[in-house]
Amino acid sequence: MSELSERIAELLERVRRQRPLLHHITNFVVMNDTANLTLALGALPVMAHAREEVEEMVGMAGALVLNPGTLTPEWVDSMLIAGRRANELGIPIVLDPVGAGATRLRTESNLRLLDELDIAVLRGNPGEMGTLAGFGGEVKGVESIKEAEDPLRIACTLAQRYGLTAAVTGKRDIVSDGERAMAVDNGHIMLKTITGTGCMATTAIAAFAAVEEDHLLAAAAGLACFGLAAELAAVHAKGPGSFKVALFDALHNLTAEQIAKGAKVWYLL
Amino acid sequence: MSELSERIAELLERVRRQRPLLHHITNFVVMNDTANLTLALGALPVMAHAREEVEEMVGMAGALVLNPGTLTPEWVDSMLIAGRRANELGIPIVLDPVGAGATRLRTESNLRLLDELDIAVLRGNPGEMGTLAGFGGEVKGVESIKEAEDPLRIACTLAQRYGLTAAVTGKRDIVSDGERAMAVDNGHIMLKTITGTGCMATTAIAAFAAVEEDHLLAAAAGLACFGLAAELAAVHAKGPGSFKVALFDALHNLTAEQIAKGAKVWYLL
Amino acid sequence: MSELSERIAELLERVRRQRPLLHHITNFVVMNDTANLTLALGALPVMAHAREEVEEMVGMAGALVLNPGTLTPEWVDSMLIAGRRANELGIPIVLDPVGAGATRLRTESNLRLLDELDIAVLRGNPGEMGTLAGFGGEVKGVESIKEAEDPLRIACTLAQRYGLTAAVTGKRDIVSDGERAMAVDNGHIMLKTITGTGCMATTAIAAFAAVEEDHLLAAAAGLACFGLAAELAAVHAKGPGSFKVALFDALHNLTAEQIAKGAKVWYLL
Repeated sequence: MSELSERIAELLERVRRQRPLLHHITNFVVMNDTANLTLALGALPVMAHAREEVEEMVGMAGALVLNPGTLTPEWVDSMLIAGRRANELGIPIVLDPVGAGATRLRTESNLRLLDELDIAVLRGNPGEMGTLAGFGGEVKGVESIKEAEDPLRIACTLAQRYGLTAAVTGKRDIVSDGERAMAVDNGHIMLKTITGTGCMATTAIAAFAAVEEDHLLAAAAGLACFGLAAELAAVHAKGPGSFKVALFDALHNLTAEQIAKGAKVWYLL
Repeated sequence: MSELSERIAELLERVRRQRPLLHHITNFVVMNDTANLTLALGALPVMAHAREEVEEMVGMAGALVLNPGTLTPEWVDSMLIAGRRANELGIPIVLDPVGAGATRLRTESNLRLLDELDIAVLRGNPGEMGTLAGFGGEVKGVESIKEAEDPLRIACTLAQRYGLTAAVTGKRDIVSDGERAMAVDNGHIMLKTITGTGCMATTAIAAFAAVEEDHLLAAAAGLACFGLAAELAAVHAKGPGSFKVALFDALHNLTAEQIAKGAKVWYLL
Repeated sequence: MSELSERIAELLERVRRQRPLLHHITNFVVMNDTANLTLALGALPVMAHAREEVEEMVGMAGALVLNPGTLTPEWVDSMLIAGRRANELGIPIVLDPVGAGATRLRTESNLRLLDELDIAVLRGNPGEMGTLAGFGGEVKGVESIKEAEDPLRIACTLAQRYGLTAAVTGKRDIVSDGERAMAVDNGHIMLKTITGTGCMATTAIAAFAAVEEDHLLAAAAGLACFGLAAELAAVHAKGPGSFKVALFDALHNLTAEQIAKGAKVWYLL
């Protein structure tokens, strides 16, 4: 077992033991799925978006997930209110810039969240992240429709510009904190057949960021566990329906042995 | 077969025959699940929250489910409008005080619903119910993080104070109408691995309350059927994904024989 | 293989090859399901309702789905804004009048969408469609509680009045563009045991309308593929939970051979 696999297994064990609360302000499409993913990881979910309560709610959380996937300006306001409080309290924020590049509202809202908040981890697909980095990027709806030419450069640029850990996910996930970089090769093509897998990956990162201050490692660990669960789920899946069911089962049952055998994570820089 | 099991099986048959409409004003996380649970029980679901239509919609309903799990003040207003109309028409209201105790908005909104409406059944976890009863209670997000010291006292207190049937659900469910009390020992630990199972239990209660005026019995019957389905589902489940699938299957297929053999319900007082 | 089956199989292949974006402004209950259904068909989903972005978003879409299932007046406004832009761009709009007939808000909002927008395909159950046609129709929540007496007359009337293709779905689906009419006998009784299957059928129609200008054929093709997947799913399903899982699997895996063997579609007029 490599040292890195051991670290990842140890972090997953920490999530399961500490059961951090992950406060999500997220989109309507995936709320149920990301709540279930949170539970499958061993953490606790809460979805709360009312401006009247988000400051109080985030105070109990181990991490705050911001996901403007079905955004309106009012929801972005709630994200800013919750985010400022999270920053005051030192609670890590994980941002998923769903659909950045597809519409001006999405691009500008995500840039505003990046400007006004201290984000810990930013995870997006190549199109979204390329857009935010200013390198272009093609987004159709919420789907990146071509692989980024240089995800490492995109991740490093965003990491350095905003002082965060950036994860550009795709066939190979690239994570950088601006100085170091990691690659994660776990995952499965079936993830593209169900909705919300990007959002789920973000939730997985948040679970690990809630228990580990090295956010580069936390992000890579979250992506590795999620991707590995997908690989295990795909073995017996007959299509997207049974794949999704098996994904929750596999993540819930994920063992240190499976991580030792299956995690494909390494340092690039 | 005990007399109580027979009553429960007869009530389930009544739900399936009458197909009452359950009007939900509920949270975004569980809308799909509770709609499917309603159908699995044999009843009909509708989710409608616009203040412009809730009075009209509730007029067709057999029961009204109020679940402020992702509340805003506007949604609470709609709940009050629908609730007042339900009270005028004698349609039972079942309230699920999701996250009461976690934030002031949640605690106060639920207390307001209890004060201003005539609630038929109130179902929550020990933390939520303890908070509403004024006995303390610890809620992390929407999760009760310790078992209540005396759920029977909590249930009786709430039942008497508000003139309703109160169900405190946990490993053992305790239901009281202030004079009588029942216990339900059905359920399974896997219910904690998926989101919305409390909300689903509330919907199950509503289905029975729509067809049976003895709300103590209706609540116990709903909890017994839901818990028993969970036990049956757990037999072959490989994790939370397959457990959830099997839960809907089991509830849909639940027979009088299974209830006779498996329902664990009795009168405490 | 009949010529019609070949056309349907060819259209499904076109959906999978072109991967049209289906922009949904839809209800909270089914967002996840219809997004997954879109992917299972081979198309791409996006859910976006903010008035600030819907015009831009619909510009990328192959079809716009309007589904006021959990409507408020603000959402209807967004539908009108998106719809007008879709009309300018020649992008087909598919409308699902969920619950028309149940409340005044629902009936009037759907009539307004029909009056102010150029709808390509309108799909509803007999109660909803009968209401909109002015022939009466009984809707309990969102469920048609009796079969329409003459779905062909309802479909033809709506088609001619609004210049669209109308699909009245039930045991037998009837589709008409006002001159021609088709029948689809695919489907399965298990579809009534899970929520959102009407909404899913609408999404299936939208996927085909995005790639085929003959909307009568597109609607029949969407209904046939969806209904056939339901038949295939029902074979091994043990209840509504496993049926739903198998439905997504079957649709994703649907082959030209299965369509040739199983599609039950023909011209009535």
